[in-house]
Parts: sequence; structure tokens; C-alpha cells
Amino acid sequence: MKVAILGLDGYLGWPLALYLIAKGHTICGIDSFSRRRRVKELGCDSLTPIEDWVTRKIFLLQMSPTKFAFSPVELGIDNYTYIKSFLEIEQPDAIVHLAEQPSAPWSMISADYAAQTQVENVIGTLHLLWAMHEVCPDAHLIKLGTMGEYGVPDCDIPEGEIPGFCPDGDIDEYMSEADKLCPMQGLQFPRAPGSWYHLTKVHDTYNIIFACRNWNLRSTDIMQGPVFGVKIYEMNGDERLLTRFDYDEVFGTVINRFCAQAVYGHPLTVYGKGGQTRGYLPLRESMFCINAIIENPPEAGKYRTLNQFARTYTINDLASIVQAAGKKYDLFIDIKHYENPRKELETHYYNPHRQGLLDLGYKPTMDITEDVTKLIGDLLPYSDRIKEHLVIPRTRWDSNHRDSKVIE
Amino acid sequence: MKVAILGLDGYLGWPLALYLIAKGHTICGIDSFSRRRRVKELGCDSLTPIEDWVTRKIFLLQMSPTKFAFSPVELGIDNYTYIKSFLEIEQPDAIVHLAEQPSAPWSMISADYAAQTQVENVIGTLHLLWAMHEVCPDAHLIKLGTMGEYGVPDCDIPEGEIPGFCPDGDIDEYMSEADKLCPMQGLQFPRAPGSWYHLTKVHDTYNIIFACRNWNLRSTDIMQGPVFGVKIYEMNGDERLLTRFDYDEVFGTVINRFCAQAVYGHPLTVYGKGGQTRGYLPLRESMFCINAIIENPPEAGKYRTLNQFARTYTINDLASIVQAAGKKYDLFIDIKHYENPRKELETHYYNPHRQGLLDLGYKPTMDITEDVTKLIGDLLPYSDRIKEHLVIPRTRWDSNHRDSKVIE
Repeated sequence: MKVAILGLDGYLGWPLALYLIAKGHTICGIDSFSRRRRVKELGCDSLTPIEDWVTRKIFLLQMSPTKFAFSPVELGIDNYTYIKSFLEIEQPDAIVHLAEQPSAPWSMISADYAAQTQVENVIGTLHLLWAMHEVCPDAHLIKLGTMGEYGVPDCDIPEGEIPGFCPDGDIDEYMSEADKLCPMQGLQFPRAPGSWYHLTKVHDTYNIIFACRNWNLRSTDIMQGPVFGVKIYEMNGDERLLTRFDYDEVFGTVINRFCAQAVYGHPLTVYGKGGQTRGYLPLRESMFCINAIIENPPEAGKYRTLNQFARTYTINDLASIVQAAGKKYDLFIDIKHYENPRKELETHYYNPHRQGLLDLGYKPTMDITEDVTKLIGDLLPYSDRIKEHLVIPRTRWDSNHRDSKVIE
Repeated sequence: MKVAILGLDGYLGWPLALYLIAKGHTICGIDSFSRRRRVKELGCDSLTPIEDWVTRKIFLLQMSPTKFAFSPVELGIDNYTYIKSFLEIEQPDAIVHLAEQPSAPWSMISADYAAQTQVENVIGTLHLLWAMHEVCPDAHLIKLGTMGEYGVPDCDIPEGEIPGFCPDGDIDEYMSEADKLCPMQGLQFPRAPGSWYHLTKVHDTYNIIFACRNWNLRSTDIMQGPVFGVKIYEMNGDERLLTRFDYDEVFGTVINRFCAQAVYGHPLTVYGKGGQTRGYLPLRESMFCINAIIENPPEAGKYRTLNQFARTYTINDLASIVQAAGKKYDLFIDIKHYENPRKELETHYYNPHRQGLLDLGYKPTMDITEDVTKLIGDLLPYSDRIKEHLVIPRTRWDSNHRDSKVIE
């Protein structure tokens, strides 16, 4: 199949291109390189030394005929004509849309950053939907959402529509006869996002649902948990093919940050009580899932929601896993709790479902310790690239930005 | 109280200013006059001859010390500094936000119109929220949403949070003990909007909820049904104070369009089967409700949803009411069904609630016939201003714009 990757140069986009080529797909893609630029603006850089995009383009061309283009601006207000021409020429079977501003803290920095995030993500996706409608209405849109769309409701989180009859939160009842008679079928499970960034994913969700219903487009919306790792098997051990790895407080996700702190020798920065629970998965499993979704498109007009994670952990669980993994490399890692820069529940119920991907053949790891251990090993050669002052949280949800202090 | 009206020159904004001054409030407001401009771009004009904004400003100043300013651009991408300065100087107790692109058909015209709508509405409101957070966090934001956020779910529509236990759609059960134990409390009732415009109202809703929770702002989000009428008592019969009245297929709402068609002698343009059911209210009642909301703000941090309409009617009901009302003026009015330019259910269950406003003293009319009859009388002197070709629907939800044909 021909797959367009929007955001090909990013953390997921780059390994996805390698993975899909190895699976025999043809690739095309665009990127505005906003991630490289924005991380630099923070005074930071990828912990892994990544190649420039011209070199990456050459790597891809050596593997397969690939079109990898520079997008003159971020998806968003100004480049409807560009994205439409790109799709009109390429005519992809599937479009993997990773071209969004992906950081919650970045979106909380100021009114300007919040607005940039919402314009790039929401208007970018809106333009993409219009372009698909106009030039490739049969393509399958695979959109990266986030488990963060749901927040942490005090009930199970289904995939897709809301169950109408759920007096006790027991998901099994959703499939009962009572469900089929239920008056609320057809409504999406409610969303409760926790940052301007997370809100864009919710806005996208509603825009995509409407486009599928109104124009008969087809889409899979992936509610993905945080992903970790820098290598996949398809890189054949070539260090030049590593994906980027952000460990700073703005663009780094939590396991990646903890592993970077471990190799540097900084205490792990747990926010608040550390009872926040999320679903995580290793990079290689994210690749497997996206490929499975590409190879199993929904029918025309269908909007499909898939929750994507291996299993759930609290932040305290993650810290313990990283601590234990570090011991295998003789790293002795401290864990400290910091004032939480975010406004969020620090202990809560959490039980999202992910049956949809299991049905597509996903076999999630039941213990991420082995993957975390490998990741620490992958990072050790680059530990001297870490800048210590960037690991302390300072982007606060109340807009009064300052470094968080240790609370215990 | 001091009330800022954003969109003061609009269909609701202008009579609201007169109404609130009569109630003893102090008014300030801004407008970019985008509505006047956009209606002109369609080759149309308000059916009522309205004064220019300088004259309107003089009228207001004769009644009360008022600040009414021209906003150099629409709320949206470029005017964060402007709205922030305005609020910083004015320090209003309440902000009534009517400054959004309000037309569903307009948002469906093209990718560009869809994006303009989403940028103006969503980013405009986002900037407003940031400005409130930074310069007037205690003000009460009264935001105009729409009943169209909900779509037409096959169950009752509550106000605000989702009931967790509703096996048979019986709203009374929501208040039972079972509800208090319910696992889904705290989640908003799901949304199913039907145009790019309606989607912006949903996006706004989620953005406002987050701002209230994260920054302790207070807001009332009004899910308003279509409003009709051009006069309120507080205009003292002065025709120069009439509000604008759009009857074209893009900016006219359905009762307004039917009444204009009646006075012109054009058959009423029912879309499709005409079983589409919505909640309507006269202009004077909309004014009453907004004032009641201003005078009864929620506590800090609270997001309040109020459904605002008098009662529900099908499109066929409305056509019959207008037809009957026309007879009192010896107007003999035909009703015709046109191909539906929209993608929507044409017969469906519909039972939204509106207890919140009843609790604030709202006494809805149980029959809109009298108000419709008055409206037709108010329009008759201006019937020669109608341009016939603008009443036929031609903005189609499938983007293939053409005049709809009569189907029966």
C-alpha cells in the first residue's frame, strides 16, 4: 500500500517510515521540522544524535522509492493548497497524521503558544479533511489522538461510543442485549482533557467524526498512551537510524525523561504523589499497531476509535521500574517528588479498554521492564549530551512559570 | 453591573445592549462588523433598515454612558492584545460573548470558510479566556453556544453533566440516589454537532470547561435554540432601534426566513421532510434569559450549562404557524418542500431539558403564534427590500453547491 506520513521526521514518523518500508509499503511524507526547531528554541536537543533530513531522505531512497518533502509551513492556517496538492499527486491509500504540536506543557506556556497549538493541530487537521474530501476521499486517515482525551473518569473507558447502560461501570454489560436497546447509542464517550494541547485532540476527534459522517471519509483515531524507546528491529542496529529522543520537561514524555535522568544520574522527577496512572507502550509495539491499522482499514464512512497501550502503570510504578533497570548497569538512582506543575488528580481509578487492537493481532507486553532496560542501555553512550537544568519541571498550568521544588 | 458585549452590533448584541441599559446595567462592547460585511458579500442586506454603528453609538450614549468600540479585526488569530487591553481597561463584571461567526451554511461553503469559522470562533474564545485569566479572572463569561451542539440523540438531553444511570431515557431518574453513586458523574453530555460552525461551539465548550477548572474562571454556556423577532419593548417603538434581520439562506434562521418569505409571497422553503425538531424562542425571551444569567452568576471555578428555548417545534409546525399567522394580514402562503441541502435526520426523537432557566425565573411562552404574528406585522413595511433569489437554499453539505429543487 502507499502510505503518506505527515510528520515523517518526528519521534514516531521516522521509525514508522523504516518499519513500513520493511513491511513492503511505499512511503511518502512531509514535515515542517517544527519539532527540531522548537526543541532548539528551548535550548535543548535530541539526546540521540539524529541525522539531518537530507541524510534521512537519502537513507530512505536507498531502501525504497520514497518521496519525503519539506512542508514550507506547519499544517494549519496557511498551507491548505500545499497539503491538497501533495495528496492530489501522491494519491495515498493511507495517511498517517502525526503532524501536530505534541506537547502539553508547550501549549500551556502562554496565550500565544496555546493559540499556535490549537491553530496548527485543529485547523491543520480540518484542512487535511477538506483536502481528502476533494482529492482522495477513499484514503484511510489514521490520526494520532491521545488517551489524554478522556482524562481520568471514575469509570471504565470504552473505545468509541458511550454505553447507554452502565450502572456499575462493568464494561462487560456493554455488550448485553440491554445495550442494543439503549437510548444513548451513537454518542461518543465524553472527553475531559487536561491541557490546551489535549483539547486539540478532542477538537480533532469531533471534526473527524463529522467529516466521516458528512463526506463518507474513513478514519481510525488512535488514542495512544505515552510511547518510549529509540530503536526498532528494522533499524538493523544502525545508530544513524535512531529516532529522536526528547528528555526535557516540555517535549519529553515521562518514561523517556526518567530513563534520561537515570543515565545522567539525576533523581527521577516524580510530579506530586505519583499515583497518576496512564497506559504505556514500547516504540516497537506502537509501530506494530499502526501497521496493523493501515492493513485493516474501516469501511467508507466509518470512524473507528482504538485505545493504544500495552498496560497501565502509575508514575511511582514507572520510577521503580527505571530504578530497578538501572541497577543492571550499576546505576544507583534516587527518586524524588516535585511540586506538580500540572493540575491533575494524583490518585484515581483508571481502566481503559483496548480490545480493538487485540482483535487486529496486537499482543501487548505484560511487563515493560525489559524494554526499559534496553532503552537505558541504548541511551548510555549519549549521556554526556544531557543538560541537567532542562529536566526540572517549570512550565506550570497556572501560568506562573518557575522551577518546581522537591516536596519529599 | 458592568457588562461587556462582544458582538454588540449583531442580531442579539444590539437589542441586548438596549435591554440591559433599561435594566440599569452599564454597557461596553466591541464589534468588527463582520456580519454586515459578510451579508453584503452575499449580495444581501438586513431586511430591517438598520442604522450605521456611529449612529447606534450616539443612541446608546443618549441613554447611558456607554463605550462601544470598533474591533480592528475579528476575534481570532490576531487580536489577543486588543481584547486583553479592552478588558483590562473596562474591568466588566460580566462578558457576553456573541462575537462568533454564527452561520452553519457559511461554514460549509469551502475549506477556507470552514477554517475562518473555526479560527475566529475557537481561537477567539481561547484568547478571550487567556485575557480573562490575566486581567479579569473574577468576571462571569456568558458564552453563546447552541442547542445544535447536541445533535438529535435518541434520548433526553440534560443540561451539563451526563447521567450515569439512564436505562430508559427517563430524565427524572437522573436525580435519584442511583445517580449520586453513578460512575460517570462529572462528564459532559456527549456532543454530536452537524456543521463546521456547530463544531466550533463544541470546541469552545471544551476549552471553556478546561479554563474554569484550571484557572478558576466562572462561565455560563448557553445552549440556545433559534431566536426570532426584530423588536423588544425596550425599543419604545422607535423603528431606528430595530435589530438586523437576515432572511437569506446563509445567515437567516428558519422562522426569520419563513416570515420574510410570507411577507414577500414566496412559498415557505421547508428542507426535506420537515420533521426536524428544534427548540425556539422569541427575541424578548432571549433578552430576559441573558439578563437573568448576568444577574445570577455561578461561583468561581464553576462551568454552568443552560439549555435556552421556549418549546420545541418541527419545521412543518413552524410552516403551519407562519401560514396561519399570515392569514391575519390576508397573506396566502404556500408551503413547499425542497431538497435538503444539509445532511441531517428529518424525523427523530427530541427532548432537551431547560430547567436551569426556569429556576432563574424564565417563564417561556407555550405558543409562539402570537410572537410570529407580530413579527410578520413588523416586517410588512419592508417587504420590498427582499431579494427573491436569496431565499432558495444552495449551500450544500456535500460541497456541490446549487439551488435546491422543489421535491413536492
